[in-house]
Formats: sequence, structure tokens, C-alpha cells
Amino acid sequence: MPNLSSILERVDDNLEDAVARLFELVRIKSISTDPAHAGDCVAAAEWLVADLREIGFDARVVPTTGHPMVLAHHAGPSGSHGSVVPHVLFYGHYDVQPVDPLNLWECPPFEPRVVTTPDGTKHLTGRGTSDDKGQLMTFVEACRAIKAETGGLPIAVTILFEGEEESGSQSLGPFLEEYAGELKADLALVCDTGMWDRSTPAISTALRGLVGEEVIVTAASRDLHSGMYGSAAANPIHLLARILGELHDEDGVVALPGFYDGVPEVPAEILEMWKGLGFSESQFLGEVGLSVPAGEKSRTVLEQVWSRPTAEINGIWGGYDGEGFKTVIPAKAGAKVSFRLVGEQNPDLIRESFREFVRARLPADCKAEFHNHGGSPAITLDVTLPELKKATAALKDEWGKDTALIAMGGSIPIVGNFQARLGMNSLLIGFAHMDDNIHSPNEKYDLASFHKGIRSWARIIEALSS
Amino acid sequence: MPNLSSILERVDDNLEDAVARLFELVRIKSISTDPAHAGDCVAAAEWLVADLREIGFDARVVPTTGHPMVLAHHAGPSGSHGSVVPHVLFYGHYDVQPVDPLNLWECPPFEPRVVTTPDGTKHLTGRGTSDDKGQLMTFVEACRAIKAETGGLPIAVTILFEGEEESGSQSLGPFLEEYAGELKADLALVCDTGMWDRSTPAISTALRGLVGEEVIVTAASRDLHSGMYGSAAANPIHLLARILGELHDEDGVVALPGFYDGVPEVPAEILEMWKGLGFSESQFLGEVGLSVPAGEKSRTVLEQVWSRPTAEINGIWGGYDGEGFKTVIPAKAGAKVSFRLVGEQNPDLIRESFREFVRARLPADCKAEFHNHGGSPAITLDVTLPELKKATAALKDEWGKDTALIAMGGSIPIVGNFQARLGMNSLLIGFAHMDDNIHSPNEKYDLASFHKGIRSWARIIEALSS
Repeated sequence: MPNLSSILERVDDNLEDAVARLFELVRIKSISTDPAHAGDCVAAAEWLVADLREIGFDARVVPTTGHPMVLAHHAGPSGSHGSVVPHVLFYGHYDVQPVDPLNLWECPPFEPRVVTTPDGTKHLTGRGTSDDKGQLMTFVEACRAIKAETGGLPIAVTILFEGEEESGSQSLGPFLEEYAGELKADLALVCDTGMWDRSTPAISTALRGLVGEEVIVTAASRDLHSGMYGSAAANPIHLLARILGELHDEDGVVALPGFYDGVPEVPAEILEMWKGLGFSESQFLGEVGLSVPAGEKSRTVLEQVWSRPTAEINGIWGGYDGEGFKTVIPAKAGAKVSFRLVGEQNPDLIRESFREFVRARLPADCKAEFHNHGGSPAITLDVTLPELKKATAALKDEWGKDTALIAMGGSIPIVGNFQARLGMNSLLIGFAHMDDNIHSPNEKYDLASFHKGIRSWARIIEALSS
Repeated sequence: MPNLSSILERVDDNLEDAVARLFELVRIKSISTDPAHAGDCVAAAEWLVADLREIGFDARVVPTTGHPMVLAHHAGPSGSHGSVVPHVLFYGHYDVQPVDPLNLWECPPFEPRVVTTPDGTKHLTGRGTSDDKGQLMTFVEACRAIKAETGGLPIAVTILFEGEEESGSQSLGPFLEEYAGELKADLALVCDTGMWDRSTPAISTALRGLVGEEVIVTAASRDLHSGMYGSAAANPIHLLARILGELHDEDGVVALPGFYDGVPEVPAEILEMWKGLGFSESQFLGEVGLSVPAGEKSRTVLEQVWSRPTAEINGIWGGYDGEGFKTVIPAKAGAKVSFRLVGEQNPDLIRESFREFVRARLPADCKAEFHNHGGSPAITLDVTLPELKKATAALKDEWGKDTALIAMGGSIPIVGNFQARLGMNSLLIGFAHMDDNIHSPNEKYDLASFHKGIRSWARIIEALSS
């Protein structure tokens, strides 16, 4: 790797330009879940295509029935296509979460800026700086530096940026089928993950699955006045509250029949390794203002977030929620519910079990309507891959510390799709932090994550080519 | 009553003008619970003052810390102030309920119109046509006709129109204290009530009380990602759902400690009379698309809505309720809850019992915040009043049927205030129907209610003067 040090120097020298490029992308309001921002999603995809073309990628926007994909290719060293040098598929997503409640943002979500905190740490603030625009640009910027310094890339790279990761990835399955030939590579690289702590890099080797489900309960044919109909007429908020209140038993165990089918116990030696990470429950909860662990009483917090399935209500609505008061019995009330899955839990069976659970608890004259917001099973990655060892070593070179192999509470359905549909293993490497406020107001990405993230990818790309 | 028939003829001849005046008032968007409509509330008050002055009332807008009052006086026959002719205080409210969900309105809520239904019935549609602008204008139009025909009013009339009836009546108590001298009359007339059915007039003699309460549960210090914190961190929607789900037991009985203290059993003879009204549970529920009575399993529907206390959730919110999906654990979730009271139930004790009920069910690291949205005890009116007999006879003359003495599920706190603060009895006479959709989309008032309501008040005013 004769050029590595000059590549890394180039990364250092051009950091300001890289931040400026990321900020251009962050300014595009690509909120995929809100149809009002469909045009912004297209704009973000087009911005990425233009930028990738500048580095010499053969890049294009591929329309779907939802938001478009960005698909780009760069050959390896000239004369050595495909079979000799490794070929990686890098995946990220350009769509972002909604920004409400807007009034809690200290800086406007789509006006990114560099903020220096009291302890001297520099952050990049704005929606998507961490999830996932900042993370995906670490890879793009690494390619840019390598290209500028050496005139090419040492491996063949295909890039796929999705625009529906935050809204159920409805187009992804059909797209992977249709473009399987173009997407198939030796290995997928997925950047949507975090570090263990501020100084310890991590590769995630276990991911929970996800079932997203919406339920709308309808009682009367119209809103009613509670003085006229109160008590005698079914109130869908009551029904929903009671049903959702029964989702967990007194010990925090999910009460859906069959929910724990296929949930494995974490092997004792892994639990032992996790203990060695020095995870502090009180610190983890304390950072968000809590002190009492919720959930399953018989499990530690780390076990819960890394290895246990969960049921969460992510949203609820019904009746009057404005200023003041309105004595209404609404006709409808609804909730968004998600389940995190582990092991062999079956997303379809769990969705059906939830629906049955709701239906069985409704009076005969009330109805429940359900909407499927996507589902994916849990994933466990192969920790014996030679590429994993190379990446681990490259990360150690950058950060000066051993890479932690960790589990992840979140879900990245693409990894399962790559495995199932394209027969590809994935390496999950990212530089986000727990306190990045992804999915919350005041999302940020450490400038160090962005800077050393770019350097890390430059090292990993070089390492994979050897 | 030599002029009564010519007064009634005048009412008939001028109906179109009366509808036009009501529509002017309905067009003013006086939604009291929404601060954005404060100016509209003032406009509605000013419109009423101008109209009352046209009939010769000494009328004015009286500011409060909330929305203003309309206060107006008209002397009885000249030379006979106060002591000889009866003096009535007529009460109504010019504020209206919010109009959401707007998309369910067939005609825009503030563009009133006359609609003929397939069965030939004519309705006046629009927010407030029934509750309470249409009802209060029946009295104003009766005064107008009497004045035009006879040059005066046969009794002394004071009018009070409130602007906060739909939002807790916060200014009413202080106002009644300060203006007690101006408001005190022999009897109050309150128009915010309904008929028994389309052909049977009614006077309401029992009213439930009301406690309005808002609860906001806070868990973490910020919104969390459910993949990172799910299960281990408290979810305020779960907490709220579970607590509200426990508000009633399996038999529909409200579970708050002490809730039923002071709740009387309805005397057997009254229950017998109610049976004679021919109330049909299946029709009552069927009209709103329901068939299974909810609430207390040991009580009939009519008992429940007329004589039993209730607990209802009128609104709930928390997390993401927009399009698509967001895997968030919100920091807060809230609900609006109301209790209908009967007998001697104490609003303050019930509010406190609810707050304790919530607090006792929260983990140590979560907080509940409460907002008081008003409270009033239940009222039972004196059915032996001579004025009640006169009004009953006048109503029979208009409708050709005996007047039903009924209980009311709703709450009209003003009646308790008149009793407690001004020592005044009230007669509750109104012409609304169950299907008027008050507090719902597509509010309407039968043209017959408006027309015969005006005629009824003309008859009652004449009857009270004799």
C-alpha cells in the first residue's frame, strides 16, 4: 500500500471541502415517509449521482414505484475486471427521518453547521448528518481521495443508495430481484451502524429483525358527544389503550401467543464477553434521563437491547389533541407498533399473532384495520470471514484499539436481503455514536467520526485489495 | 295574550330573515378552545351586541381574561320595573367546538346552508347551527317578533351569552361574582338542551357534572430510537395505555378509588317513568353504527347516559402519527380524560383520585404532569316550580304533545353556578336533536327546531308574563 499515507494526508487536507459537500446533501429534505418530500428524495438521489460521476463512477438514478435508487459502478485496476480483484457492494441510504417535533431543534434540521461543544468536540448538526448521509459520505469521500491520489480504485466498487430505508423499504425487494446481476459482488459493505464508544471501532455481527404494524380501531360511525353517548358507546381509545396495555405482562414479557418461538438464549461465553465490555446500565439510561430499567425483569439492559425481542408502541392518536378540551368520543383511534426480532422469529407469524391479539379483544361491533409497514427477520453474520479480519486490522490501524464485535439493537433489513436474495455476506461498519440523536431532534455526527471514518474506509479499501 | 297569534304569524312570515341572521353568526369562526380564533370570538360577541341593540336591548361586550361576555338588558312593560313583572335571565353561548376532522364535513363548517334531506326535512348545516348559536337565536328571534308586534317585552329580560362554554368556562365564576347584581333575576332560562324526539318537547331536570383533566407522561429526556433503547427504556405510550386501560374494570365499572362516593340510585318510580318513554337501546346505538352496549354491564344504556357517572378518554397522543412509520420511543405522551358526575360526587376529589391513580402506576424515573380543564358537580332541578308548569303548557300548545321531563347526559356548568352563586333556579329548554352532530363533523339544526323553537319561546315568554 505505497500510497496509503498520501491518501490519508489528502483526506486530512480536504476535510473542509468534504464537510461542505455533506452539508449540500443534508440541506436536501429527503424525508421518505412524508409524500410531500418525494421531490426532495429525487433531488438527493440526483445530487449523489452527480457527485459519484465526478469521481468517475458510472452512476445513475433508477426509478422505483417509490423513491428512486442510486446505482453506481467503478471498475478495479484497469485490465483486471471482476474475477481477480475483489468486488464490493457498498450500501447506504439517502433518505432521512421526519424532523418533528421541530421546536426542540436547537439549529434548524436542514441548515447543517459545525458546532463546537463546551468540551471542545466538534459536531456536524442536522437531520441525516449521522443517519445516514454523513456515514455514506465517509465511503464516497474515501473513494474520492484514493481516486485523486492514485487515479483509480484498487478494487471494483458498486454503490447502492436507497431512498426508503426510513419508511419500510417497499421497493427494495423487487429492485434486488430485477438488478441482481448488477448488484452481485463478493461482499457487501453497510455503513449504517455505530462505534462501541468514542475511541473504539466496532463491527456489528448480529442484527435484530423488525415488524412494523399500524392498527386503527373503529367504533361508532362518527365522532360522538361524550355527554350523550359516554360509557354506553364503545370508545376506541379505551379499547386501544386496554389492548396495548396488555401487550406486556407484569414482568415485561411480551404477551403475544407464540412471540418467543425461535428466540435463542445467548451462549454463556458471549454473555461473558459482553460483560467484559464494561457496559454501565446506569450510564446508558442516565444519558437519557432514566434510571429504572424497563422491559423484561429477568434480563440485563444489554441483553435486552442486543439479544431480546421487543414490542414497542411508536405512535398513538385518537380524539382531540389540540389546545384546550373537547368532550368527544372519537370514531377511530390508532397506533403504530413495532416488534424487534431475534434468532428464528418469523415476522409474518408475529404480525398475524398481533392482529389476532387485537381482534380477539374487540367487541363485536368494533373493527380493526391493519397496515403492514414492513418486516424482516433477525440476522447473524459470519464472524470467520477473511474480509472481517482485514477490516478489523485496518480499523485498528486507524483508531489504535481493537475492534469490538458487537450486536445491534436496530434492524437493517438490507443485510438479510443481501444474504437471502444475492447470497452475499455483509460487513457492518459505521462510525455513529449512541448520542447522535438519530430519529430525534438535534441529530449530529461527530466531526471525528466523519474525518476518521473517511480515513478508516480508505484503509479498509486498501486492505481488501491486498 | 291578545297578540300571541299575530306574534306567531310574524315569526312565520320572517323565518327567512331569521335564518339569514343566524347564518351571519355561524359564519364567524368562534372556536373558543383554539387561541387562533380569539379574534373570531370577539367578533361573534360584537355581532350579538349589535343585533340585540337593534331589538332595543341595552347590550354590551364585557371583556374577561378569556373570551368576552355579552350582557344585555330589556325592561318589562314600561312603568313596571323589576318587582311586578317577572324578570328572566336567558343564557346561551356563542362559542363553538373545533371542526376537525375537516375532511369529514359534507359542507364547509362555516359556510352554513339550508339542506333538504331525502325525506323532505330541511336542515341548517354548519358548526354552531345547533350548539348553541341556533338555539340562542330562537330566543332572540322570539324577542324580536314580540317587540315588533307589541312595541315591548311583557317581562324583564337579561341576556348573558358566554364565549367559553366549549373550553372550560374559566372566566365564568369571577364574572358571575363581579356582575351578580346585574345578573340576578327570578329565573334563568337555558337553551343548550334538546327535545325528547322530533315531535316531543322536553325540559331537562337533571344534569351530570363534569371533570376535565389532561395528563402528560414524560419518560426519557428526549425521543429515543427503539432499536437502541427499545424495551430497556420506559415508553410513555405504554405507560399511558396501561394506566388508561385500567381505568375501568372487566365489568365497565370505573376503577378510581372513591369514584362512586355520592352516586345515588335512581328511584324505582323514575326508572319506571323512563321505561315508559319507549327508549330503544338498539336504535340509540344503531344510529351511530354500534350494537353492543359498552360501559357498566349491570346498567341499561338509558340509565348510563342519564344517571351514571362515566370516565372517558377524549384524546390521546404520543410518538409518530404521520404517514408511514418511525421507530421512535417518544419522550412524552398525553391524554385528555373527562368524568361525568352525578349526585353528590365531588369534582375535586375525583380529579385528585385520578391523579393519584396515574402517579401510583408510574415507574420512579417517569413523571406525570396534569392540567385542570374545569369541573362542576351534577345538578338536580326543582320540578315543582310554577314557571315549569307554565313553560310545559306553552310547549304543549306549540307541539301538541306533553312535555317530557328528562335527565341529561351532558353537563351545563352554568346551571350549577346560577344555583350556587346567584340563588336562581333554571329552566332548561332547547330544541336540539340527538342526530344534530354537535361536537362532530356535519353539525346541523332542523329548520323545524329553529322555527318552532322561536314560536315556543314566544309562547313561553307570554306565559311567564301572565
